Amino acid sequence: MLSGKLIEDVVVTERQGIEELYNKSFYGRPKGETLEISLTEAAYLIYVNKITVEYNGSQLDFKEFFLKASSSVQNFELLYIVYKDLRERGYYIQPSVTGFRVYPRGGRPGKTPAEYFMYVISERTPLLLTELKKNLDTVDNLKKRLVLAIVDEESDITYYDVKKTTPSGSYKHEWKKPLATASLLEDRVMMWEPEASAMLYNDGFFGKYISEGHLQLSLVESGYLLNKGILNIEKQGIGNLDFNAFAGLASGIESDFMTKSRAYEALRDNGIVPKTGFKFGAHFRVYKNFETISTISHSDYLVHAIEHDHVFSLQQLSRAVRLANSVRKEMIYAAVEPQVYFMVIGRIRL
Amino acid sequence: MLSGKLIEDVVVTERQGIEELYNKSFYGRPKGETLEISLTEAAYLIYVNKITVEYNGSQLDFKEFFLKASSSVQNFELLYIVYKDLRERGYYIQPSVTGFRVYPRGGRPGKTPAEYFMYVISERTPLLLTELKKNLDTVDNLKKRLVLAIVDEESDITYYDVKKTTPSGSYKHEWKKPLATASLLEDRVMMWEPEASAMLYNDGFFGKYISEGHLQLSLVESGYLLNKGILNIEKQGIGNLDFNAFAGLASGIESDFMTKSRAYEALRDNGIVPKTGFKFGAHFRVYKNFETISTISHSDYLVHAIEHDHVFSLQQLSRAVRLANSVRKEMIYAAVEPQVYFMVIGRIRL
Repeated sequence: MLSGKLIEDVVVTERQGIEELYNKSFYGRPKGETLEISLTEAAYLIYVNKITVEYNGSQLDFKEFFLKASSSVQNFELLYIVYKDLRERGYYIQPSVTGFRVYPRGGRPGKTPAEYFMYVISERTPLLLTELKKNLDTVDNLKKRLVLAIVDEESDITYYDVKKTTPSGSYKHEWKKPLATASLLEDRVMMWEPEASAMLYNDGFFGKYISEGHLQLSLVESGYLLNKGILNIEKQGIGNLDFNAFAGLASGIESDFMTKSRAYEALRDNGIVPKTGFKFGAHFRVYKNFETISTISHSDYLVHAIEHDHVFSLQQLSRAVRLANSVRKEMIYAAVEPQVYFMVIGRIRL
Repeated sequence: MLSGKLIEDVVVTERQGIEELYNKSFYGRPKGETLEISLTEAAYLIYVNKITVEYNGSQLDFKEFFLKASSSVQNFELLYIVYKDLRERGYYIQPSVTGFRVYPRGGRPGKTPAEYFMYVISERTPLLLTELKKNLDTVDNLKKRLVLAIVDEESDITYYDVKKTTPSGSYKHEWKKPLATASLLEDRVMMWEPEASAMLYNDGFFGKYISEGHLQLSLVESGYLLNKGILNIEKQGIGNLDFNAFAGLASGIESDFMTKSRAYEALRDNGIVPKTGFKFGAHFRVYKNFETISTISHSDYLVHAIEHDHVFSLQQLSRAVRLANSVRKEMIYAAVEPQVYFMVIGRIRL
């Protein structure tokens, strides 16, 4: 069997390794007349009996090598688990900073460019939006695809595809300005005029009737209509509110009002009709092709608005994506920076 | 039409009200020769043209009455929305401290006891576990059922049934003590002995094989096995760990280790086999009737462990319950106080 030496954080073999391991199966990276193998690769090669590894003159068994690697490479167990999974599915892969570069099926290093950048992370590790965005930008510039490989506490791996997206729809309507006046009550806004209520509901899918002639608007809907000059909003004891005054009160009622509000506006401005996604645990469910209330069908995506300093709990991310998929919708995150960009996150099977 | 007077937080009618409103349809509560009607009931009665309401000598229209009630009763809009929904579904209901008492279909005040205690809450309001528990205990003592009526920002209502439960299963096994030694690596525990690995996996559904002969155990599984004396756990550079040392390290890796661990132990002690619920966004998926690995079928519930000072985000609650239901499982919360009690929360259609 081929023998390698553990030297610091890498296993090195003689020239024979290049022929047997790299040329045939793309393990390691040739360096002159030797082959350098990462510890992840080496652990796998020990496991499949393709190499033995020596350290300080004695041969390490799988356990000894694994313990050693685990104490010197961060996330070693995660990397091993994902590496093994991908190799056994027939992918050629090479190490990268946050995980692996994965070659497409039928492709291989030197012949084809890598297809995925795999970001390996434990279920338990909080994932910063800024970190995700940085990786997404890098991968985008290289015209690759970003995949999160999330390893759960029982070493099961779930792969998620992360892509930038620009949701857009066909909705357009010219409104009379101002159309009506509504009242901000304790934590919602009420319209009292049956005619204006009917127009907002039927032609724009704003609000919800709580009784005949009484349309209730959500805070984000109200803020949007106020900001566009379509609605006046009054508050008992204060009088008419401008957008800033309304946004101040609304932010006291729901602390993420401004974030939701920006995402709502971006969606509406893109021709999309957002409604509450509460039943799906997201901020919005959205309709791409709203024309009138009588022809409405199922909503198309779920959208959740997050701030630029958002930290994803991977457990919550997993729940959100799974729930969206279970109702055959895509899960989109609207990041408010304050300009809004959208990312769609979905499970993929490699 | 019947006329009432708004006096502080109540509308009062003459004796005729008792006959027309209470005796026929159980609106309000008779007080001597008068009928007292809550503001929620009164708003609905104005809306359906059954009463007019006078205040300071002049009659209030729906809007005027609603604004007035909204500024004097907390959650008035929510109460109105839920009241109207329940009445229109044909339920007789009476006010209670946190919402309504709801009589069963075919039942009515004075004839049958109330069936549900309805806790009315906005989607946006954080719900303390201690508050939920207090209500659950009260309602349990009265042999009623607790229902959360959660009103979303567009005034849609979702009803959730909350019940205490005691999940139990048939799993039992006698283990050799100690069976084997495992290593705590960076954030997971690895077994190296093929025979002991096979026993733990096949007979107890502990761990997951990451490669042949190498069983990886989750932190809660490891802690449980260590605590029961079934496993020794060693850490490089430290040596053998006792449960306290292990729990200390594990809590550094996942901050809710102790909470999860208590819930895990309570489930195992009840004959139930818990495995990670990461893919479902919960701590555990659990198996009621595990015998051996070869005869295992689908998991039965999802269980999420929470601490006694937990605050439910209703959006997250909604997502968890919906996701559990979409995979035909019940959503159970294990509250660690530190003794563990279980609550099952599910959507109900009234």
